[in-house]
Amino acid sequence: MSHTLINGQFADTIPFDDRGLAYGDGLFETFALQGGNILFRERHLARLQRGARRLMIDLDMAATNAELDLLSAQWGSDRAVLKLIVTRGSSGRGYGIDPLAPARRIVTVATVADYPASYYRSGIELALCQTPLAIAPLLAGIKHLNRLEQVLARAELTARQQEGLLLDSEGWVVEGSFSNLFLVKDHCLLTPLLDRCGVAGIAREVIIEQALAAGIAVLQQRVSLAEVMEADALFMNNSLIEAWPVRQFNGRQFDSVAWAARARQWLLMAGEAA
Amino acid sequence: MSHTLINGQFADTIPFDDRGLAYGDGLFETFALQGGNILFRERHLARLQRGARRLMIDLDMAATNAELDLLSAQWGSDRAVLKLIVTRGSSGRGYGIDPLAPARRIVTVATVADYPASYYRSGIELALCQTPLAIAPLLAGIKHLNRLEQVLARAELTARQQEGLLLDSEGWVVEGSFSNLFLVKDHCLLTPLLDRCGVAGIAREVIIEQALAAGIAVLQQRVSLAEVMEADALFMNNSLIEAWPVRQFNGRQFDSVAWAARARQWLLMAGEAA
Repeated sequence: MSHTLINGQFADTIPFDDRGLAYGDGLFETFALQGGNILFRERHLARLQRGARRLMIDLDMAATNAELDLLSAQWGSDRAVLKLIVTRGSSGRGYGIDPLAPARRIVTVATVADYPASYYRSGIELALCQTPLAIAPLLAGIKHLNRLEQVLARAELTARQQEGLLLDSEGWVVEGSFSNLFLVKDHCLLTPLLDRCGVAGIAREVIIEQALAAGIAVLQQRVSLAEVMEADALFMNNSLIEAWPVRQFNGRQFDSVAWAARARQWLLMAGEAA
Repeated sequence: MSHTLINGQFADTIPFDDRGLAYGDGLFETFALQGGNILFRERHLARLQRGARRLMIDLDMAATNAELDLLSAQWGSDRAVLKLIVTRGSSGRGYGIDPLAPARRIVTVATVADYPASYYRSGIELALCQTPLAIAPLLAGIKHLNRLEQVLARAELTARQQEGLLLDSEGWVVEGSFSNLFLVKDHCLLTPLLDRCGVAGIAREVIIEQALAAGIAVLQQRVSLAEVMEADALFMNNSLIEAWPVRQFNGRQFDSVAWAARARQWLLMAGEAA
């Protein structure tokens, strides 16, 4: 049984002249699939559409939705990860785009191993990456396919480190290589502004909303490394890991388990309500 | 007759889980093929290897060379463009890399239309692009697959404009969307430093060497827009266009034909000598 749909057809390959391959000219989304439900589907698709508008990619949302439905129904109730890649499709040589060219959709589903319980119970070790994130406001926030910075940052981690923190080229703290960061300070949440680089995560968006609803102040602003070092707690989040407490970062120990558990609870509640 | 080799086999598709598609995790080169010869082959392959080292991609150069030989021999003597894409191959989910994973090589050859003679005889109109190039020293100079900035810049050109000039996020002049820039001032050449962003073009490298050999001073430095506006002549260059004189840029007329013709002559001479 194949688990990949390419423009609605079961297939495992794409044409070599796809612009996603040639230029990273496209977008992606990674959804958690649980009990047959695609968690935070509308939020993911809203981000995808923001990205498509930014990149001027003409995406057929009805077809996209039908393909997500088909693959998730076929998969059944086991926990899985559903990945959607949208590219500007095939083209001849050169960067020039045809605004009428149809996008190519690649949807695939795969089992996802449970993360070790210790990550949630005791926390993770977070590396401080040397790879800087370039400041690129036009591409900030959206989940495009130009991900060499994340690949290079991820390659810096040692075997004992589960995630790495990236700074922008001016030294401001931005995000993890595959997750967003929250700091806790004096019972308030703080998370880096993502107006110049970084991916605006769906879990991050949900956590901000749920914290505010619970009467907790949330600040989005430039965050310095010194502020991270002085935080009361740190946790990393995305749609699949939910929220990982940080136990160790840059030579300091943190006690982040309770706050990460709270964020995880918010994600669970919001996911059930959706 | 197929004109695409993927890891040495004639084929037209790649697996959907290729990391070039997923993350732009790879490199490319575009060679001019003329009379059965791959122009500046060694220089292109040297840049490719610099890129592969920077990205920690394990590339089989013997296989790469054999595939370039096979496709160019099959093509014959017509003028063509040979494109080589190298990706980190397939992998499971996530940014993590396997340093032992073999790269995937995609080599394809296609006819290339002659550019209009007027471009060389009268010059082109150069746009001033609003899309900034992010400052990313780790990725500067090499020809990687993260090219969304070039795609967005190219999309800014009107039908009358043949190329666009890109500035970095601090406002320094860097390059064209698919070519490098030279300024002529007081019989000296000036070209932007590419230590923080931009692609170090092969034609650029050859022009610098040939100019120096001809006793002409060449400066590589930060270049301001004001310096461009005050230049005596401007030309754009890459392996396929060779050198295009700029006739019009940002409201000013330039008389660049003689200098571009000279650069083109240098490329021709160096290509024959190689």
